[in-house]
Amino acid sequence: MTVAPAPLGEAIAALREGRTAATAYVAERCGRVDAVESDVRAWVDGPKEREWLVAEAAALAERYPEPADRPPLYGVPVGVKDVFHVDGLPTRGGSDLPAGELVGPEAAVVTALRRAGALVFGKTVTTEFAYFEPGPTRNPHNLSHTPGGSSSGSAAAVAAGMCPLALGTQTIGSVIRPASFCGVVGFKPSYGRIPLDGLLPLSPSLDHVGLFTQDVAGMYAAAAVCLDDWLPPDDPKDSDHPVLGVPDGAYLSQASDAGRAAFEEHLATLDAAGFEIRRVRVDAFEAIEAINDRHTDLMAAEAALEHQEWLDTYPDRYADSTAAMLREGRDVPVGTVADARAGRHDLRESLAEAAADHDIDVWVSPGAPGPAPEGIDTTGDPVMNLPWTHAGVPAVAVPGSTVDGLPVGVQCTASFGSDERLLAWAGLIDAALGGASDG
Amino acid sequence: MTVAPAPLGEAIAALREGRTAATAYVAERCGRVDAVESDVRAWVDGPKEREWLVAEAAALAERYPEPADRPPLYGVPVGVKDVFHVDGLPTRGGSDLPAGELVGPEAAVVTALRRAGALVFGKTVTTEFAYFEPGPTRNPHNLSHTPGGSSSGSAAAVAAGMCPLALGTQTIGSVIRPASFCGVVGFKPSYGRIPLDGLLPLSPSLDHVGLFTQDVAGMYAAAAVCLDDWLPPDDPKDSDHPVLGVPDGAYLSQASDAGRAAFEEHLATLDAAGFEIRRVRVDAFEAIEAINDRHTDLMAAEAALEHQEWLDTYPDRYADSTAAMLREGRDVPVGTVADARAGRHDLRESLAEAAADHDIDVWVSPGAPGPAPEGIDTTGDPVMNLPWTHAGVPAVAVPGSTVDGLPVGVQCTASFGSDERLLAWAGLIDAALGGASDG
Repeated sequence: MTVAPAPLGEAIAALREGRTAATAYVAERCGRVDAVESDVRAWVDGPKEREWLVAEAAALAERYPEPADRPPLYGVPVGVKDVFHVDGLPTRGGSDLPAGELVGPEAAVVTALRRAGALVFGKTVTTEFAYFEPGPTRNPHNLSHTPGGSSSGSAAAVAAGMCPLALGTQTIGSVIRPASFCGVVGFKPSYGRIPLDGLLPLSPSLDHVGLFTQDVAGMYAAAAVCLDDWLPPDDPKDSDHPVLGVPDGAYLSQASDAGRAAFEEHLATLDAAGFEIRRVRVDAFEAIEAINDRHTDLMAAEAALEHQEWLDTYPDRYADSTAAMLREGRDVPVGTVADARAGRHDLRESLAEAAADHDIDVWVSPGAPGPAPEGIDTTGDPVMNLPWTHAGVPAVAVPGSTVDGLPVGVQCTASFGSDERLLAWAGLIDAALGGASDG
Repeated sequence: MTVAPAPLGEAIAALREGRTAATAYVAERCGRVDAVESDVRAWVDGPKEREWLVAEAAALAERYPEPADRPPLYGVPVGVKDVFHVDGLPTRGGSDLPAGELVGPEAAVVTALRRAGALVFGKTVTTEFAYFEPGPTRNPHNLSHTPGGSSSGSAAAVAAGMCPLALGTQTIGSVIRPASFCGVVGFKPSYGRIPLDGLLPLSPSLDHVGLFTQDVAGMYAAAAVCLDDWLPPDDPKDSDHPVLGVPDGAYLSQASDAGRAAFEEHLATLDAAGFEIRRVRVDAFEAIEAINDRHTDLMAAEAALEHQEWLDTYPDRYADSTAAMLREGRDVPVGTVADARAGRHDLRESLAEAAADHDIDVWVSPGAPGPAPEGIDTTGDPVMNLPWTHAGVPAVAVPGSTVDGLPVGVQCTASFGSDERLLAWAGLIDAALGGASDG
């Protein structure tokens, strides 16, 4: 079996209380790597050497002998998508560019995780520069299927139980889609709530740092470390009965038949669990094609600006698909970029108005058009994630069900800045859907 | 007479040694304002109230009773171009936009000046958003002529002796040109050596923070406070005999006949003073039209990105000339922006190679095509400054001579990052030209 439980919430409790030694936990995860990595291929050249990892865990244990003193992510091994700079490890970005071109100071979020006691376990496979050209990673639920992308290795490593936490990024749908495909919890916070410093940029107006875990409780703990200005909801009771909104219409019709059918089942389960569900036509989503085009233009234009000098110098070291996107980005007029950037805010406001008009707390939608497609030559379609990324609102993927053994996730989104509350609500939704995420 | 001496170097010495009280010096400058401001119009609503300024000077005197403890710019009143945020003063940017749109934290360079003991004297007039639409400021040497732009008020205030130091910005030629027109010293450091934080942006890839004084010695002291990583030249003797290069050809031919004639006189004076002067054809400057176009496109494109939301919201609050530039910027393709950004570095390298090939230390050229044009409806042509700004190399304007009572400056430029040495060399060139800058 290439999937295995490794819920972060339980790991944190066991590590901090001393029921599991940090060295033992790391060794256990290394054991999972030995068992499945040759099939899953989640890591760039494998995780760090076992001796190095165990020595780091031992040093941490020595530093915090008293359970009461231990930081919130004490001893938690974290997989880092290979678009973040980590001191002591090269950054390759899934690219053939010379490694010397891709150096930089450690990403702020990596430093934050380390300070909270997490151990960098290794670099996870990314598509080339977090665009679409895939790496070798396979879906742990079915090795002949894609794990999704661009955070392919992070989603797969968490699903396979090789690490309980991993960092990813999402510019269109690169956290929520692979989380859905791999049956794990994915979280893409509000735009900017995790700083982008130390990340190889794809499109700075659209890039988001995100996280993967197997469980919502663990995600909540990791988010509390990584997000700026984390503020737990005042009154947890507020979170008890979120009203769920379903954005019916042009947007939803982008899902596949199988995806739609699974999503309807998830809604029925949630309805049976007592959630109020409102089907709403979101005006802004009727022009979904225009949003998709605007997003794609903005991404390509910003990527063209970021990559121009590299592409000039190393034209043959880019995959054709990436180079084609960068060349198309060059033709985008600056006014289109400016309008698209402004359009992000307009869409954010439209979504907030629709939610207010219908008293909706959480939008629910499919995490991907359907289950993971067969083959690893593509990473699937991010279209279900795109408008939420465009608006920069927080999104959480929770596991819904499986279709032919492949997971299908539910995407929960809420208004800009309500990340803390959304995670609390996602926990309720996840529990109602069967708590598949709790290992 | 609307011009009057106020050399910064002497002011610093007198203030720090206690020969002049900070309160007295500020009061003296206020006296100059009373005498000439109604003609010159250098200030946005005048400087701060005299009581406020004198109280600030008194507080400073109380804080530093001992001359030996006084910071480097103790008691120096500084004019701040109204595109920088200053805590306690509104920012208007020469614009009709609501002031509430233009708020932000204090500019890093303003904070650095304050920490060094300088007193913000007030906000100086800028063209609209530091582009070309002029304000009401007049040239202190001849009130029917422009002081140049966009840092109009800063150049005029220093020339008129209202303050010994002022902050400006240069995106094409907005420091060196008005300094030349007003017969003062202007300094535009290497790109990025004064941080841009807290500045209303026009074109972030091209915006430079700059300074005005009447004297090179004072400029050196101010630069030591404002520039990041200031490092005085190891051996001042290295600076004794700079070889001067004249970039002959297409670039120089952009000067007017009067400007060319004055420049040849300046070269003759420098030659007589013993400077070695080499006339060189700089290959990169033969395509000066292409550089001008690339610079203009990049500026307009970046300005369009910066101003899009304001222009959408307040289309009628922009001057026609500014709005037209912003609309043209929208049509620039992203690839042109990327190429222009890369072109800055290429030009910088070409200039460094030309200097190395001919053993040139300082390039000398006219600070403007000629003396300040008549009228205040335009601010003159920045074409002599443009390629140096494009390359991001440091530039110093020193007064050369006068033509019909109007100053004509000499622009001294050098290789990227050699700001300290360039200022030392500019002092020698200034002295040879008659030290007009020393009051």
